[in-house]
Amino acid sequence: MRFVQIVVLAGGTGGARFLRGVRAAAPDAEITVVVNTGDDVTLHGLRICPDLDTVVYTLGGGIDEERGWGRAGESWTVKEELAAYGADPDWFGLGDRDLATHLIRTRMLDAGYPLSAVTAALADRWQPGVTVLPMSDQRVETHVVVSDPETDRPRAIHFQEWWVRHRAALEASAFVQVGVDAARPAPGVAEAFAAADAVLLAPSNPVVSIGTILGVPDLREALLATPARIAGVSPIVGGAVVRGMADRCLPVLGIEVSAEGVGRHYGARSDGGLLDAWLVAPEDPADVPGVDVRQVPLLMSDPEATTALARAALDACRG
Amino acid sequence: MRFVQIVVLAGGTGGARFLRGVRAAAPDAEITVVVNTGDDVTLHGLRICPDLDTVVYTLGGGIDEERGWGRAGESWTVKEELAAYGADPDWFGLGDRDLATHLIRTRMLDAGYPLSAVTAALADRWQPGVTVLPMSDQRVETHVVVSDPETDRPRAIHFQEWWVRHRAALEASAFVQVGVDAARPAPGVAEAFAAADAVLLAPSNPVVSIGTILGVPDLREALLATPARIAGVSPIVGGAVVRGMADRCLPVLGIEVSAEGVGRHYGARSDGGLLDAWLVAPEDPADVPGVDVRQVPLLMSDPEATTALARAALDACRG
Repeated sequence: MRFVQIVVLAGGTGGARFLRGVRAAAPDAEITVVVNTGDDVTLHGLRICPDLDTVVYTLGGGIDEERGWGRAGESWTVKEELAAYGADPDWFGLGDRDLATHLIRTRMLDAGYPLSAVTAALADRWQPGVTVLPMSDQRVETHVVVSDPETDRPRAIHFQEWWVRHRAALEASAFVQVGVDAARPAPGVAEAFAAADAVLLAPSNPVVSIGTILGVPDLREALLATPARIAGVSPIVGGAVVRGMADRCLPVLGIEVSAEGVGRHYGARSDGGLLDAWLVAPEDPADVPGVDVRQVPLLMSDPEATTALARAALDACRG
Repeated sequence: MRFVQIVVLAGGTGGARFLRGVRAAAPDAEITVVVNTGDDVTLHGLRICPDLDTVVYTLGGGIDEERGWGRAGESWTVKEELAAYGADPDWFGLGDRDLATHLIRTRMLDAGYPLSAVTAALADRWQPGVTVLPMSDQRVETHVVVSDPETDRPRAIHFQEWWVRHRAALEASAFVQVGVDAARPAPGVAEAFAAADAVLLAPSNPVVSIGTILGVPDLREALLATPARIAGVSPIVGGAVVRGMADRCLPVLGIEVSAEGVGRHYGARSDGGLLDAWLVAPEDPADVPGVDVRQVPLLMSDPEATTALARAALDACRG
């Protein structure tokens, strides 16, 4: 069985790298990626969509490979000048090359184009080879409930402030999706699930990437209505987060930081959960009732390993 | 007589350099500059005020001295990236350092601050040593009526498009000030004229800089009500424009490209015009009825020459 329509749910860096593997593993398939936009933020009047840009830059050859976000050969002149004016905030990594993307996006959004149309227009330059869809055209921003160190009272800060400024070091008590009640899946999302013959959950953050996508009203239902099998890839290898700070997020929802913990959090599709199959690393045996758990190498250390992982994930969709 | 309150009307580069002379010639005076904003333009969603920035950068030590506009040590990364996306327009000199200024200005304007308040906030970094006022807080944009080469019909294009993109090479039949009917002098402008003991017209473009300022309703009347003498400096030396393309603008209004022609265009204050005094170069004898015409070196070739010119202009306000 050769897959024709593949849908991937993804966040930023890890999801983007996984997508390169899927593209290589299924070069003839139509691949659609539904991307988390809960990290999106407006700074200095610019609308910034970190995960969308990471996916497009990574697949389009514009990414800074080492950093995993932003543009290769980046410079930081505008950021330094903004700081010289004393403009807040000064902790966000706003690169000069990247800024052109934000300017065009902001201008198009202000002119009334929906984010999905803006994303398609920007992707036209990068030719990522997959269809990139935001999870929603409506603004949904993840905020993190933390305890104010001054007053000891709960306070909600934007995810980017928590993640970038505080490096997720502030104790979080909850994640809230501001604006989610008015959100709908972006055009094409439900259609992609309905037409899919394989659906993959990338090894992205289960809480603030995959979890945020699934929080959009009707999106989870559209996903579960897919005729395809759904296979997820664990972001936990050897009991630890491969990249990012998911270990700061999982406990907030009472999820154990393990491949088994995340698998059980997603749950078996036969039992109201998401998963038909769950890919874990050889060193992470996991018991997830009702789910076809497969142990395969998960580290995307080079293109071959990444493609092999994607192939294993697609295999798991064959049942 | 030592001047205490000096007001200068100015456009961009020439006006800004002249202001350095005024500041040096009258270090104890309060100097207010009323700046043309008819060149202002919104590009890529950014509000750009070329003359205000040139004045502030020049007096604040941030200007590119050779170019006469924009920031010293400028880079053009964002501009190149915008072009790589195919974003229009690609002919405007949008520097990376400069862009931070535009971002802050745009954000403040969007938040509801008037341009005068934004200008003061930006000047706070640069400490220009003079009070910089836009001519108006309302948007007034100079458009140029040209003949469409395709259809031969008249067409209005933004001044920046005519000036920067076409290098003023398209034949112009008129300049129009879009938005001028709703404009008022910015806060502080009328008060500055009323308190002035010297008013100077910088050697800026008489049509699209000084002329645009004077086109703001009530501004000309406020100027003429000043108790101070008004002295102008010719932008024409040796029968030619020192800098810029005023020779492309003057004929549109039927003004002769000469020191005498511009002096007569401004006219004698005693006769409903602007001038008490008119400074022309030694090689430009000028007969302007009712005006105290003085021949002094006009070239601002170095700080000393510029200060001497400013001193001569202030002298002419002593009567």
